[in-house]
Amino acid sequence: MKIVVDAMGGDHAPEAVVAGVIEALKEFNVTIVLVGIEERVTAELKKYNYPKDRIEIIHAPEVVEMHEPAVTSIRKKKDSSIAIGIRLLKERKYDAFISAGNTGAVVAASTIHLGMLEGVERPAIGTVIPTLKKFSFLIDAGANTDPKPEHLLHNALMARVYVKEVMDIANPTVGLVNIGEEAGKGTGFEKEAYKLMEEKVENFIGNVEANEVYTGKSDCIVCDGFIGNIVLKVSEGLMESTGKLIKREVKKNPVAILGALLMKYSLDHIKKLADYSEYGGAPLLGIDGLVMICHGRSSPKAIKNAIRATMREVEHDILSIMRKELSK
Amino acid sequence: MKIVVDAMGGDHAPEAVVAGVIEALKEFNVTIVLVGIEERVTAELKKYNYPKDRIEIIHAPEVVEMHEPAVTSIRKKKDSSIAIGIRLLKERKYDAFISAGNTGAVVAASTIHLGMLEGVERPAIGTVIPTLKKFSFLIDAGANTDPKPEHLLHNALMARVYVKEVMDIANPTVGLVNIGEEAGKGTGFEKEAYKLMEEKVENFIGNVEANEVYTGKSDCIVCDGFIGNIVLKVSEGLMESTGKLIKREVKKNPVAILGALLMKYSLDHIKKLADYSEYGGAPLLGIDGLVMICHGRSSPKAIKNAIRATMREVEHDILSIMRKELSK
Repeated sequence: MKIVVDAMGGDHAPEAVVAGVIEALKEFNVTIVLVGIEERVTAELKKYNYPKDRIEIIHAPEVVEMHEPAVTSIRKKKDSSIAIGIRLLKERKYDAFISAGNTGAVVAASTIHLGMLEGVERPAIGTVIPTLKKFSFLIDAGANTDPKPEHLLHNALMARVYVKEVMDIANPTVGLVNIGEEAGKGTGFEKEAYKLMEEKVENFIGNVEANEVYTGKSDCIVCDGFIGNIVLKVSEGLMESTGKLIKREVKKNPVAILGALLMKYSLDHIKKLADYSEYGGAPLLGIDGLVMICHGRSSPKAIKNAIRATMREVEHDILSIMRKELSK
Repeated sequence: MKIVVDAMGGDHAPEAVVAGVIEALKEFNVTIVLVGIEERVTAELKKYNYPKDRIEIIHAPEVVEMHEPAVTSIRKKKDSSIAIGIRLLKERKYDAFISAGNTGAVVAASTIHLGMLEGVERPAIGTVIPTLKKFSFLIDAGANTDPKPEHLLHNALMARVYVKEVMDIANPTVGLVNIGEEAGKGTGFEKEAYKLMEEKVENFIGNVEANEVYTGKSDCIVCDGFIGNIVLKVSEGLMESTGKLIKREVKKNPVAILGALLMKYSLDHIKKLADYSEYGGAPLLGIDGLVMICHGRSSPKAIKNAIRATMREVEHDILSIMRKELSK
């Protein structure tokens, strides 16, 4: 198996990416193709001992910056690590592409160069979120912020395949994020999406209110990309603000400081449960090719885990299964 | 000042409502008109000593259940405490109406019987949320889930008046919830709302990403009612799930249990900071009348604080100020 990895993607590239790749080579039976500025990648690799025959380097002279508009990056940087990586994937000599770089650029390059899976009109980003049960899979995290109801149906079908094959949950449930539990809630958009999913998605459990996202009520959580962005960012912001508030209050009180120290082990364990790096990456679904997007702040561990998830995608040939599900 | 209070509204009515009203009578110079099943209200009032001349009771034989569809409640229960309360307000003998009952029914009855403020097409629910700075005012919490961009403009203008007059923040900032900070982000809807607000709303600071909702970046946080519902419910669910997770982990470890005990004072203080009952109620804006909606689970303290906020609305004559702002 040969997986192409964007060596220049992410806030700590190429250091974190290369470190993650080296970890992956130790643990998994995979060959990695690093795409990036050759000089920098080679310099980074020199820090490690690794099986030379399981790493290839392909030079990409340009780098897409993290906050560059996707359109500009596509037009002006035809030889970026993202563009070259995706084009390599298109040649079918390689199995998948992973990047912690500019999400918009990865989505745009994938859509343009790889095209869509038959029966799908728009790409979607799926993301694993921790819940009280274990974890759920939220789709779409923000690739398609103004979808049609049909797009949500396609996303639901693809999510079930991903969750079954990669996350090992048999017969996953599917819920639609809505403002009420009963059928008939929401705007015309939600009502139509509900109807389509009720007809065509196995194990569809109906609407899921936003306060149920983290209870584990549904394995697949389907929503439009705008809502997905809001759900994930509100969560991120709320946890950050609550953390700051707790620190501020605890600092005022020596007894509480001691208390916090005594709780440290448990709290660290919880942080680990909620740590995105445990899951690695967010698959870009709907594309005719296996593309995994990692957080810009990905640690080496996150990169390694993204490689593991991607390997499962390849081993289970999820694209073929998705094609079958979509054509039913 | 005479404020009409729905005695039958909320999960713990009439007990919690009457208890809150009694508290308010002690602290504030106000007369309360309790609307509800007279027998039950009188029985409840018998538990307390209170200034008899500052409470009136108006009999309403019917009660709207908490989960009854709003439309049914309007059609079939013309003599519910909500319907009678709102009709009393319409007669202008009373200054405002407060209910912890069925939100949909309150919104529907208000819209039908009181009508809209001139220049406003749809009602919106504003809600006070705790932030790292102090608190912000989010509008719309869910009254209008499929608005036009103009509705967001109206809500922004009304929110500024509320925050200035009732929450005592001079020249409040206004932000639009969006999936990116830069102008031009979001769907056509957000772009148009942005343009309108940029032109017409004083101290408009542009887009606010969802991870900034709790940092206090903006005093008024404007979004459509669907998004508002998602923001509030995700927050509620995330805090609840995190709390459960922490309890579960801490229980496994005696040292952590001790730590949690030592932190109790600080954590209770934080809970108080984030407690909705500190702010009382959520004003229903855009209606030609002062209507305050309280959480179904309102404690007596929440009811008391809702009465205080409503009194400020009356004292500052916010409807007149809103009319002026809307006609500019």
